Amino acid sequence: MNIAVLLFDDFETLDVFGPVEVFGRLVDLYNITFYSLNGGQIKNRHGVSILTAKLEEVNKNLEIFIIPGGLGTRKEVENKLLRDKIKEISIFSKFVLTVCTGSALLASTGLLDNKTATSNKRAFSWVITNGTNVNWNKKARWTIDGKYYTSSGVSAGIDMVLGFISDRHGIEFARRIAFEIEYNWMEDKDNDTFKVE
Amino acid sequence: MNIAVLLFDDFETLDVFGPVEVFGRLVDLYNITFYSLNGGQIKNRHGVSILTAKLEEVNKNLEIFIIPGGLGTRKEVENKLLRDKIKEISIFSKFVLTVCTGSALLASTGLLDNKTATSNKRAFSWVITNGTNVNWNKKARWTIDGKYYTSSGVSAGIDMVLGFISDRHGIEFARRIAFEIEYNWMEDKDNDTFKVE
Repeated sequence: MNIAVLLFDDFETLDVFGPVEVFGRLVDLYNITFYSLNGGQIKNRHGVSILTAKLEEVNKNLEIFIIPGGLGTRKEVENKLLRDKIKEISIFSKFVLTVCTGSALLASTGLLDNKTATSNKRAFSWVITNGTNVNWNKKARWTIDGKYYTSSGVSAGIDMVLGFISDRHGIEFARRIAFEIEYNWMEDKDNDTFKVE
Repeated sequence: MNIAVLLFDDFETLDVFGPVEVFGRLVDLYNITFYSLNGGQIKNRHGVSILTAKLEEVNKNLEIFIIPGGLGTRKEVENKLLRDKIKEISIFSKFVLTVCTGSALLASTGLLDNKTATSNKRAFSWVITNGTNVNWNKKARWTIDGKYYTSSGVSAGIDMVLGFISDRHGIEFARRIAFEIEYNWMEDKDNDTFKVE
């Protein structure tokens, strides 16, 4: 399965590389490529500079589209060109996975309207303004609504992707990956330790 | 404090970006730069391509040197040029932090001789061949011996760096960061859930 990871300036480091580590372990099953609106090096405030392809090069038979969060989302929700591209790709992608405030970016396209979603627990008041018709869930570690998976903050992206792997390949398979990366997988998607009451 | 992160081809994604996420949260305190032997783009099998500076540009008053693991370490322990550079930088750096099989790379320089260290629990039989005089600890999540911090596999790098932050800034400060990144910090460095008996 082909995975497209969206990057933009000031993405959150672990939002991206937690999921990439998990999918990357399954190199025979998943092929990861990084994209940004204009391609080239994308940087964040952690000193990371990653080489990306252009979003317009994403293949139409994409299986998984990953949208991370980070401080950059505050700016990018106002970027109509990027929003339109996210909407176009999310419609044809077989699955769309958001981490942290990446759900605000996706919500801003309208595609999460009347769907269940979650986000970073400490950014919720801002996130929900980007999708007033979304059924926001403040207790979930991650949510699934049709082809849309959305996770809570930062590390929760790892739990969600392990959940995604579990849904496709079985829970024992997902547990083995968690074991290999020595990660204490929070398996219950509905009860986040970090939930907001 | 200046942080130099060592990269080489086929580094493990989360070994690098777990610690970078934690230190990156403290942008006013820590400044992260990525380095490799020859500089330029460094790639791994997860599709990641990161821009790096040359190791020879690392400033002599470096505070923190991070050495990740990954499949690439199998090749790099044979790379005398890199080993010599790692040794030189580790000697002048105020602290040296290794993640996963990164401890094998550091051990191959001799600097861990007669010191306590740990590594990935599933790579232990190979790791210990790189430092027969090291006091290898198979139960620790991470170890501290003087200026050397070494962690167990992949995600354990996050726990170790939270421990490092705790040692410098207090445990409540470290707990707040864990909370912000919604990470269940394994606070007990001496008892790894993934330990080998």
